[in-house]
Amino acid sequence: MEKLKKYISVKDEDHFYHQGAVELLIFNFLLILTILTIWLFKNHRFRFLHETGGAMLYGLVMGLIIRYVTKSPDVESGTVYECEKLKSGPSTLLINITNQVYEYQYKREISNHNVNGHQGNAMLQKMTFDPSIFFNILLPPIIFHAGYSLKKRHFFRNLGSILTYAFLGTAISCIVIGLIMYGFVKAMVHIGQLEQWEFHFTDCLFFGSLMSATDPVTVLAIFHELNVDTDLYTLLFGESVLNDAVAIVLTHSISIYSPKENPNAFDAAAFFQSVGNFLGIFAGSFAMGSSYAVVTALISFMHLTKFTKLCEFPMLETGLFFLLSWSAFLSAEAAGLTGIVAVLFCGVTQAHYTYNNLSPDSRMRTKQLFEFMNFLAENVIFCYMGLALFTFQNHIFNPLFIFGALVAVFVARASNIYPLSFLLNLGRKQKIPRTFQHMMMFSGLRGAIAFALAIRDTGSQPKQMMFTTALLMVFFTVWVFGGGTTPMLTWLQIRSVLVGVDPDEDLKARAASQSAPNLDKNTTKAESAWLFRIWYGFDHKYLKPLLTHAGPPLTSTLPEWCNPVARLLTSPRAYGDQLKDGDTDYIINNDELTKNYESSAPIPVPAQDSTASTQATGKEDIQEGDLGLGGYKLQLQHTAGQPQKNSLA
Amino acid sequence: MEKLKKYISVKDEDHFYHQGAVELLIFNFLLILTILTIWLFKNHRFRFLHETGGAMLYGLVMGLIIRYVTKSPDVESGTVYECEKLKSGPSTLLINITNQVYEYQYKREISNHNVNGHQGNAMLQKMTFDPSIFFNILLPPIIFHAGYSLKKRHFFRNLGSILTYAFLGTAISCIVIGLIMYGFVKAMVHIGQLEQWEFHFTDCLFFGSLMSATDPVTVLAIFHELNVDTDLYTLLFGESVLNDAVAIVLTHSISIYSPKENPNAFDAAAFFQSVGNFLGIFAGSFAMGSSYAVVTALISFMHLTKFTKLCEFPMLETGLFFLLSWSAFLSAEAAGLTGIVAVLFCGVTQAHYTYNNLSPDSRMRTKQLFEFMNFLAENVIFCYMGLALFTFQNHIFNPLFIFGALVAVFVARASNIYPLSFLLNLGRKQKIPRTFQHMMMFSGLRGAIAFALAIRDTGSQPKQMMFTTALLMVFFTVWVFGGGTTPMLTWLQIRSVLVGVDPDEDLKARAASQSAPNLDKNTTKAESAWLFRIWYGFDHKYLKPLLTHAGPPLTSTLPEWCNPVARLLTSPRAYGDQLKDGDTDYIINNDELTKNYESSAPIPVPAQDSTASTQATGKEDIQEGDLGLGGYKLQLQHTAGQPQKNSLA
Repeated sequence: MEKLKKYISVKDEDHFYHQGAVELLIFNFLLILTILTIWLFKNHRFRFLHETGGAMLYGLVMGLIIRYVTKSPDVESGTVYECEKLKSGPSTLLINITNQVYEYQYKREISNHNVNGHQGNAMLQKMTFDPSIFFNILLPPIIFHAGYSLKKRHFFRNLGSILTYAFLGTAISCIVIGLIMYGFVKAMVHIGQLEQWEFHFTDCLFFGSLMSATDPVTVLAIFHELNVDTDLYTLLFGESVLNDAVAIVLTHSISIYSPKENPNAFDAAAFFQSVGNFLGIFAGSFAMGSSYAVVTALISFMHLTKFTKLCEFPMLETGLFFLLSWSAFLSAEAAGLTGIVAVLFCGVTQAHYTYNNLSPDSRMRTKQLFEFMNFLAENVIFCYMGLALFTFQNHIFNPLFIFGALVAVFVARASNIYPLSFLLNLGRKQKIPRTFQHMMMFSGLRGAIAFALAIRDTGSQPKQMMFTTALLMVFFTVWVFGGGTTPMLTWLQIRSVLVGVDPDEDLKARAASQSAPNLDKNTTKAESAWLFRIWYGFDHKYLKPLLTHAGPPLTSTLPEWCNPVARLLTSPRAYGDQLKDGDTDYIINNDELTKNYESSAPIPVPAQDSTASTQATGKEDIQEGDLGLGGYKLQLQHTAGQPQKNSLA
Repeated sequence: MEKLKKYISVKDEDHFYHQGAVELLIFNFLLILTILTIWLFKNHRFRFLHETGGAMLYGLVMGLIIRYVTKSPDVESGTVYECEKLKSGPSTLLINITNQVYEYQYKREISNHNVNGHQGNAMLQKMTFDPSIFFNILLPPIIFHAGYSLKKRHFFRNLGSILTYAFLGTAISCIVIGLIMYGFVKAMVHIGQLEQWEFHFTDCLFFGSLMSATDPVTVLAIFHELNVDTDLYTLLFGESVLNDAVAIVLTHSISIYSPKENPNAFDAAAFFQSVGNFLGIFAGSFAMGSSYAVVTALISFMHLTKFTKLCEFPMLETGLFFLLSWSAFLSAEAAGLTGIVAVLFCGVTQAHYTYNNLSPDSRMRTKQLFEFMNFLAENVIFCYMGLALFTFQNHIFNPLFIFGALVAVFVARASNIYPLSFLLNLGRKQKIPRTFQHMMMFSGLRGAIAFALAIRDTGSQPKQMMFTTALLMVFFTVWVFGGGTTPMLTWLQIRSVLVGVDPDEDLKARAASQSAPNLDKNTTKAESAWLFRIWYGFDHKYLKPLLTHAGPPLTSTLPEWCNPVARLLTSPRAYGDQLKDGDTDYIINNDELTKNYESSAPIPVPAQDSTASTQATGKEDIQEGDLGLGGYKLQLQHTAGQPQKNSLA
């Protein structure tokens, strides 16, 4: 009894002093190592192992150390206790042990076969953190940053192609992987490699959908550094960002799909319900994300007479921006929708509207904040993936399954890219060249999203096998393909036109294209479909003036009888001709003036000497504003002036 | 059985979709509300309820709603199960319930009397987050920011007084509160109000030490806004920052103090061991924190021939800076020292050395990042304190104990400030006026640290009573004294000289003082003790050149035989006369040039028109550098030019 008390008090001491500190320190240590390695690599222009690959490698080594060096301190762990009185697992369990009540919290349900010796190693326990941290804290900044820094001009130019790859391509990929895996599973059962678990076709499809999420992180970082062709960059970026969203919703829909009777038979009703689910969840998440962004835009736009504007307080502004964007994610999750999709479109909408209303200070702050959070979260995730190979305790390595997955992923990627590119090229004026197609085929890395989807559910043996396989696929693709990106680009001779990294060169290129403005306008017209032209017109005439300080005043775009309302809603800064009278002290230089006219500026614009020409275009913009196309040119001008000198994507 | 399975699968579904999202969303919602309220208050110049008070109020209301609106969904919670086979509480418990193994994680030990109906309410459970999140994630940025933004000139000027208040004052406060509480406890036991628990004198001292941590947040925010006298600001800021550190180490030492036999009797050996512990922990934490900062400074200073400097990659630089600073905290915690103390001195050292080596971009980034994190963390903590009043499930409200604490806290604060001020005024040339003393007395709010220390251990009934009382004291002081700060300042007629908020006015004041430089130098000399003069000389001559680009080259300060080593270690930018030859393209304007000479600049300096005069002083600095006092003047110049337009501390 005396000894027992001592044991407990030592444990409490331990809890009191460095609960959680050691685990966080390990992560910090790994990240510091990664950063130092990146620095080293950057110095030696070493591109065969990308930083994410490095982070993963360090994680792997650390996982190995933790697994085999630390010992399980609890003697009693690994033992399963029987409690006859309990009927189901409550979320909190109070247990009376020798007159002391202990509180235990429900963690998960585990299959009997998973109860092994490592189960109780406290260190391993702590290092495998909750998937909810992954989803709620680490992923949102990455996805938001992707949306927030999307180069809209190129994106909208290639929107048709991107949507095709994202929706149709992901569906193809999912089905192809599902079919191939089903074949492999059947074969494995046949030759006795696999026991007859409940491995249905839906499980294979589930695996297919989670393996269809390609990762924008690694390849894009390399592309960004190497200044790869803008169109290729946009295609890949747009595809992989949207494709993540589609894959997540698809996985969600498939996991809901539950045929009534025979799980292997096709149930039309359940299938259509799943399709309906997919569409509903996607649309709902989109609406949730955009509406949060619109709320942010409205708050930052508010100009009540007695109120100082929010942009006078950059800290409050940044805080609100950050919290509302995160809330978009959390609300979607809480409502049973998909947070990733919501936060992605929230980011896009924030960049489109709210960004215009922010004070210059807040523009920089938000940009840098999300860039930094993105950088940290990305490296944490890759470190963690490395760690998971050794710290996760219920891996099931099945060589045949892994081999099957490898084959399936390749075939699926090929049957996604090549046929779709062929179809798209039929309609596109500016064809997608063969080399681009090969590069897109090659760039189908798997990363954080595939991993996150797989780790969400590891309750049953098939799911554990899927998780292990997905993890290995991430390792393989990131190291092999990530490392091979540079040689592949050289081999395919893809010209290195910049992605908007060097502002000067871009400026020159733009200046050249500016001298033939009709050409530019024509291609834009031809490539963006009529639907998007209508949307642009609507956006430019009504939404922009309503939500931002940009665009023509509502009084000129709305019908005359709406004038009283329009005057109330329009920002005083939107009246172009009134600028010279009242607000001149507010607008200090030409650059400021330009900002009032700009249609959309996704990236902070520093005071550059190119302002004079920008201003000219800005004025043109208002004159031809009703076509809604002037925005393109201005934005082009702004993309040109972007100050992205920082060396990380 | 069928029903059971359904129940479990529904639960899994729930786990899959919005695990944790709702709780985070509630916090986000509270923070958004708080920010909007702050905005409203700022507009109406309403200062009777400070933002932290507002955050607490919202938390309180939300806690009330959660407590009484949400229902406990688990039917089986609140029931204590007996498990005869278990001998002690393992960290992980595997339980077999109807052939399904569930994993439960150890959360805490609870006394039998605490098992009540609310125990199992899942919502309440989740909202009361782990104290380790508090300590490891929310507190470090706040404390680091305090150290990083410390105005060193005023701080060192008043160092003697600050140290006296912090060390002696906290010890006095702790003992006085401990004695008074012991009296109250004895009286309560006597009149039968309190059962005869094991409420020893050490428990009272423990309470005394945790209640001695005053909070810099609220009052300083108000002071900052109101431009209160710089010396008063520095005294209070320095005192409350160091006092937190002292109180934390004191609490730690007292909790370790375990007299051998009778717990009420005085055990000299144990007492001296505690004192030794206190000193050891304090010194150790200090060393840990500074060494991490020195490592950061060295890395950012490194100038190997083949290497691009780290400052070429602002993102890596910021990342490393952030991670190493956080690691200082975590390492100290992991080593059994006090992380808060470590991270505080890490912040001070980072500002002193590393800041000089950072690229201008990183200076701004780190500054804004920590400012933002400080802002968020602060508001989360105050919201959480509000929540805790209703969501914490084992409050013990004892009116007499609470009243006793109220009395004790006041008496302790009075017997800390007034006698010490009297003693200090005997030695100080520039006396601390009566009004300042009253204001310091009035500013003894309790906040995050007191709360954090109290929540760390709520296992026994005395500890729970202490927690409840500490929480109420926080509410009372923040609302009553926080709200009363402005009227009190007016009433005491403390002149509103600025704290460095308005650069123009400060500049004028400095220009005036500059015209009589001898006076300034003399006061500085007189007030900073000889120890600090020696330290300054050493720092200026050896440490600064070794760790930063500032200060005289090592070749001129080290003895001649060290020349080869000195040349190797000195940054090329430290040679003043070489600047014009080689590095001219690197140094673009006068402002840049100034930065190379500056001794210490805690805050980013924008391009201002005062650079010409600053530069002049900068050169003077090098000439009189051997006295180590020139730094003061330059820093003064820099404090003057600070761009802190942001309205939050």
